[in-house]
Amino acid sequence: MSIPNARPINSTMMQVPLSLNHLLERAGRLFPTSEIVSRLPDKSYRRHSYAAFYQRARQLAQALLSLGLRPGERVATLCWNHHAHLECYFGIPAAGGVMHTLNLRLSPDEIAWIANDAQDRILVVDDVLLPLYRQVASKYQFEKVIVFAFSGATVDASFTDYDALLAQSDPSRFDYVSHHEEDAVSMCYTSGTTGRPKGVVYSHRSTILHTLVACLGDFWGLRGTDVVLPVTPMFHANSWGIPYGAVMMGVKLVFPGPHLHPDDLLDLMQTEPPTLALGVPTIWMGLIQAFEAAQTAQPGRWSLPVGMRSLVGGAAVPESLIRAFHKHGIWILQGWGMTETSPVCTISYPKAELQGSTMDERYRRAAMAGVPVPLVDLRIRSEDGADAPWDGIRVGEIQVQGPFITGSYHQLPISDEKFSADGWLRTGDVASVDPLGFVRITDRTKDLIKSGGEWISSVDLENALMAHPDVAEAAVIAIPDEKWSERPLACVVLKPGKSTPPARLSAHLLEHSFAKWQLPERYEFIQAIPRTSTGKFYKLKLREMFPA
Amino acid sequence: MSIPNARPINSTMMQVPLSLNHLLERAGRLFPTSEIVSRLPDKSYRRHSYAAFYQRARQLAQALLSLGLRPGERVATLCWNHHAHLECYFGIPAAGGVMHTLNLRLSPDEIAWIANDAQDRILVVDDVLLPLYRQVASKYQFEKVIVFAFSGATVDASFTDYDALLAQSDPSRFDYVSHHEEDAVSMCYTSGTTGRPKGVVYSHRSTILHTLVACLGDFWGLRGTDVVLPVTPMFHANSWGIPYGAVMMGVKLVFPGPHLHPDDLLDLMQTEPPTLALGVPTIWMGLIQAFEAAQTAQPGRWSLPVGMRSLVGGAAVPESLIRAFHKHGIWILQGWGMTETSPVCTISYPKAELQGSTMDERYRRAAMAGVPVPLVDLRIRSEDGADAPWDGIRVGEIQVQGPFITGSYHQLPISDEKFSADGWLRTGDVASVDPLGFVRITDRTKDLIKSGGEWISSVDLENALMAHPDVAEAAVIAIPDEKWSERPLACVVLKPGKSTPPARLSAHLLEHSFAKWQLPERYEFIQAIPRTSTGKFYKLKLREMFPA
Repeated sequence: MSIPNARPINSTMMQVPLSLNHLLERAGRLFPTSEIVSRLPDKSYRRHSYAAFYQRARQLAQALLSLGLRPGERVATLCWNHHAHLECYFGIPAAGGVMHTLNLRLSPDEIAWIANDAQDRILVVDDVLLPLYRQVASKYQFEKVIVFAFSGATVDASFTDYDALLAQSDPSRFDYVSHHEEDAVSMCYTSGTTGRPKGVVYSHRSTILHTLVACLGDFWGLRGTDVVLPVTPMFHANSWGIPYGAVMMGVKLVFPGPHLHPDDLLDLMQTEPPTLALGVPTIWMGLIQAFEAAQTAQPGRWSLPVGMRSLVGGAAVPESLIRAFHKHGIWILQGWGMTETSPVCTISYPKAELQGSTMDERYRRAAMAGVPVPLVDLRIRSEDGADAPWDGIRVGEIQVQGPFITGSYHQLPISDEKFSADGWLRTGDVASVDPLGFVRITDRTKDLIKSGGEWISSVDLENALMAHPDVAEAAVIAIPDEKWSERPLACVVLKPGKSTPPARLSAHLLEHSFAKWQLPERYEFIQAIPRTSTGKFYKLKLREMFPA
Repeated sequence: MSIPNARPINSTMMQVPLSLNHLLERAGRLFPTSEIVSRLPDKSYRRHSYAAFYQRARQLAQALLSLGLRPGERVATLCWNHHAHLECYFGIPAAGGVMHTLNLRLSPDEIAWIANDAQDRILVVDDVLLPLYRQVASKYQFEKVIVFAFSGATVDASFTDYDALLAQSDPSRFDYVSHHEEDAVSMCYTSGTTGRPKGVVYSHRSTILHTLVACLGDFWGLRGTDVVLPVTPMFHANSWGIPYGAVMMGVKLVFPGPHLHPDDLLDLMQTEPPTLALGVPTIWMGLIQAFEAAQTAQPGRWSLPVGMRSLVGGAAVPESLIRAFHKHGIWILQGWGMTETSPVCTISYPKAELQGSTMDERYRRAAMAGVPVPLVDLRIRSEDGADAPWDGIRVGEIQVQGPFITGSYHQLPISDEKFSADGWLRTGDVASVDPLGFVRITDRTKDLIKSGGEWISSVDLENALMAHPDVAEAAVIAIPDEKWSERPLACVVLKPGKSTPPARLSAHLLEHSFAKWQLPERYEFIQAIPRTSTGKFYKLKLREMFPA
């Protein structure tokens, strides 16, 4: 024997599309007894089994089909985190629809603009959010409004009652609407601090891939025995994707409903101790302050779930916050990503190289954005268009590419401002990457301060200021300067009862290895830092407050 | 505003193909200091960093291109588990080639037949396996033979030296060969106990998806700080896929080379204690016997790595083995799959419902094949063609479907014997599934014993016999019977020094809830159970030994 004509061969693997419907069927089959706990507006708890979730999601899908929903049409949600919202996550795509999560923290004008841009046909809305809905309704008319009686009150007859709608549907008669893996399942609008929000549309494929990656051991590390508390709203980049991961692994889910006050979250953690909780730094800061204050004032009122993992993202996590939680046995994993990236792009987990490092070194890394996850390609583009080396020093714009990263925005042309010529997403964040692969974000491109030809990182200044014991919060912006072109202005919120002078804050910064020319030109002491609807510092507003 | 013409929308996600090359680049970038330890033929250790692995895999790819390899052409390997084999796993696909792992336990005739069926163009072979190669070479001629100097000896000038070939290649000049995600990356032949081996061809897509799924928390649970010992040969279904997972997460890999004797593995575990080890039940049985014997004879010679996870598969894992390891702090996760399924299909992990169960209940579940992993759809087809309910009682053939399951065999027409009319793989294994989703395999379709119209499970009889303290191993086959059509014959290997009579074994079976008519008709006491090249009971051979 020899080789006459060696020819290429094809893979023999089955052509099976990736599908959210597989996760729903899996949950119904394998995890019928897993639990979903939702906190109601009156702070009581409602419990569902996955068996009920499975049945109800299919009932919702069947109901949407009988309402005439066609493949690819949008069904909007205006909901808190609870079991019915989870049913929408799976039931809407099961019917071939696209779930569009509306952000309830936006103004009625913005919500109407977004709903119109997405051409939402149907709306699922919590009864407790009907006042907001009514303001939206005068500006955008949904074809059908389904009201979820979250508060338990009777739904006004002018609306369709969510539970009544489900009760009319026979889930055993439901067949999934067939689809390709590239078909849309959900959409979410960016919360740009400048410009109009832009729609990002996720597919079956991108959602399954993101779910598999984010669930891996070093990241969420989800196991079936976990109890997961998503404090992150389900209208922020799909609650970072955790609802999909939870359903895939069959974990117990604990939804906080509308109760995001630190006291409420601490109460919730006593009743339903989570093993993994996800949220933004602002809420986590409030949580630890309330907890520590109570330790003195009301000892024994709360305990923190020791050993709980915590994923914090959406904004930079100060090292002081990581240290504060670790004192109580909770390790914070910081994540970085955007609506455009599904969102998990990097996670700061304790890499193998850090075994045997000092705790200071571990905290330092934990306060970085972290290491790119599988399937995400990441590069740092310098101003000259070259790739910056991963030396921990050279900075540039983070650009990413991968199967769960957006390659365009809904109904918008592909712009040079948002995408590189070779098809990478330009994130607008400026960072360095060190030799271990840890991304350290120094700024938003928009927020960098260019002083005398040198860049000053507003994020570095903010973190150092927030490490001062008297400072509650700090945000740094650029102000125009004739000589230096731009100079830093620090907006500082002091802790109650403190009146620390600027000179002492500057001395603190000098001690923390800032150069003299990097110090804030000016300090403004304010009551609170204005924030965007997603809890980020709203620097546009600050620049309006302090134009020069 | 209202909806004039709601139209379906497209996902905005990037079209990025899944690719093994991404994992290789990731490893080079993020895990340069992770370690790969290979045990050499002389039992010494050789250590490589991932930085070296990354460079060498790209050098191999570059070298294959300069040898004229074209996309889709096969490069065979005839190698033990070591770093160079890992380089082939990534370097061959990086060059657009298809890695074809040849099973060194097969006869030269079989290897030649398989190499010819695959039309392998190039061979990478360990120098210590050249005697086997020479027997193959008289029957099938590879175009090029590259010899890896595993023993450290000089390579005969008539061959191409693997390391010299790499040294000539400049990896910085290498560009990955572009590919689609459905393109082939590797192939492996089934080790059917009957009929000719059949080729299964994996793609970039199937390999990435299988890797992501198998790495999840409840299964391999891989983290960057893990130390992984793949005892499973890299020529058995890609060592169950663990090399890909290890490289994705950056774990330390410990390769045993040719040294699979229990004493050698125990020695290896002292030098390089693993946190996860993978192997077949036969080897794990030998391991625990050697360890426990040494505890008396040579106390302190070995310790087992407490807390190590262990994935055991390839054949049914007896409950007695799980209990024996757990006594020493090691929990065995049983997996089930086939070359056709990439291979991980089900894993028996401690599901949430088992929290609070008795240990007996946990052992009982651990001795089952386990629960289907994500992306795998599994059904039990009864003889009448209907789906058996998941009641833990009704049995049928396991059929599976998913994106990492084969839908055909290389160059063979799709046969009814192997695939259902609606495109599911017919595994040939017979099982029930209980309400928690645990698959319990009762037999191979071929191995079921039909006695008087009732089925008797040979696997159940074998497991019960192996739980008897005097029995080392037992295999049960069907023998023809005039009255009952078939009756069970038990082939039993007794432990050294034992001479237990058949009556006592039958009494033991009666005590373990077998009915009288299910007892073996006959016992044959033999020295060893013949095994296939992959370590499974070779029942075809037993049927030849005891025709009636």
